[in-house]
Amino acid sequence: MPAPIDFYFEFASPYGYLASLRIDAIAAAYGREVIWRPIMLGAALKITGSKPNVSVPLKREYLLRDVPRFARLLDAPLTIPPVLPMNSLAASRAYWWLFEQDEDLAKGFAQAVYHAHWGEGRDLSPPEAVAEVGESLGVPRDELLAAVQDPRIKARLKEETDRSIARGVFGSPFFFVDDEPFWGADRLDQLERWLATGGW
Amino acid sequence: MPAPIDFYFEFASPYGYLASLRIDAIAAAYGREVIWRPIMLGAALKITGSKPNVSVPLKREYLLRDVPRFARLLDAPLTIPPVLPMNSLAASRAYWWLFEQDEDLAKGFAQAVYHAHWGEGRDLSPPEAVAEVGESLGVPRDELLAAVQDPRIKARLKEETDRSIARGVFGSPFFFVDDEPFWGADRLDQLERWLATGGW
Repeated sequence: MPAPIDFYFEFASPYGYLASLRIDAIAAAYGREVIWRPIMLGAALKITGSKPNVSVPLKREYLLRDVPRFARLLDAPLTIPPVLPMNSLAASRAYWWLFEQDEDLAKGFAQAVYHAHWGEGRDLSPPEAVAEVGESLGVPRDELLAAVQDPRIKARLKEETDRSIARGVFGSPFFFVDDEPFWGADRLDQLERWLATGGW
Repeated sequence: MPAPIDFYFEFASPYGYLASLRIDAIAAAYGREVIWRPIMLGAALKITGSKPNVSVPLKREYLLRDVPRFARLLDAPLTIPPVLPMNSLAASRAYWWLFEQDEDLAKGFAQAVYHAHWGEGRDLSPPEAVAEVGESLGVPRDELLAAVQDPRIKARLKEETDRSIARGVFGSPFFFVDDEPFWGADRLDQLERWLATGGW
């Protein structure tokens, strides 16, 4: 069994959302699993001296045109959220809490978070809004709200983020296929070719 | 006759180089000309608060892996130059000087500059090195060296750069198809589809 693909992403990243709609099908065609790894991208942006693209002049205007165009091409639902970028701390912690219990449930939760935020335009900065998404999947509200304040879960997200930076992650989405790095939703075609050919 | 495609690029940009190898053939398949428009990207980076990618931690390491991989995929010659990023001022001014005389010669010159810098790894920061590239195309050395100091040519490059920023350009390569913007060598497939379909 070949190693799983690591899929690093930030919930506040629209390109992470667009990539999330394709990566599992691409991987499955080549017998690969995908491990979804939400991180706090702000930590990497400090190292690169960058800001979120939606907060940068010129880039913001382009992104707000490019993302809807990309989404139409994929026939993906898209509603630009009112708050950009949202604070993804609660959603990311909730993910890792669920991941420790049930990886499939965690992935379903991540997909539901992405759909609520980028598909429906809901602001998931408040933990209560994240808990609502969890409830739609049968996750008890109070348990989720307690988990996102749990020091052990906080530490898990920080470790995952630190480890991503140690591997070279500085943007979202970011993939590793057998340690080969691919950055961006627009590298998925090359990633797929890499899987098909074993590299070039 | 449909409007030409505007191709904005920075000579110091490896992704501009990779895109330059494909854009004319893509455009020609749909009856379009391409106007090559070298700019000084540093002016836009000041606005976005960015540095050249090769000067940014994490991004630099990724770029030095991604660019060769991308080049192999295109079967494009690539030699990482010793000085990153080079100063493209002389090459860019020489381009606009030639452009005013002969657009085809200017494009051939730009291709030769890109090949010398990214294909062969030569540092074209010194005007004398740019003059050598010009000589290989029959451009008199002394005339080129005088032109890159000509206040009128300096002003032309500055105007082109300012105008690119006014249109929203913040990276290299950057294309406009009938005012529709596409950023990045990895948007060429979408650009081609846009030409084929008239947009979506």
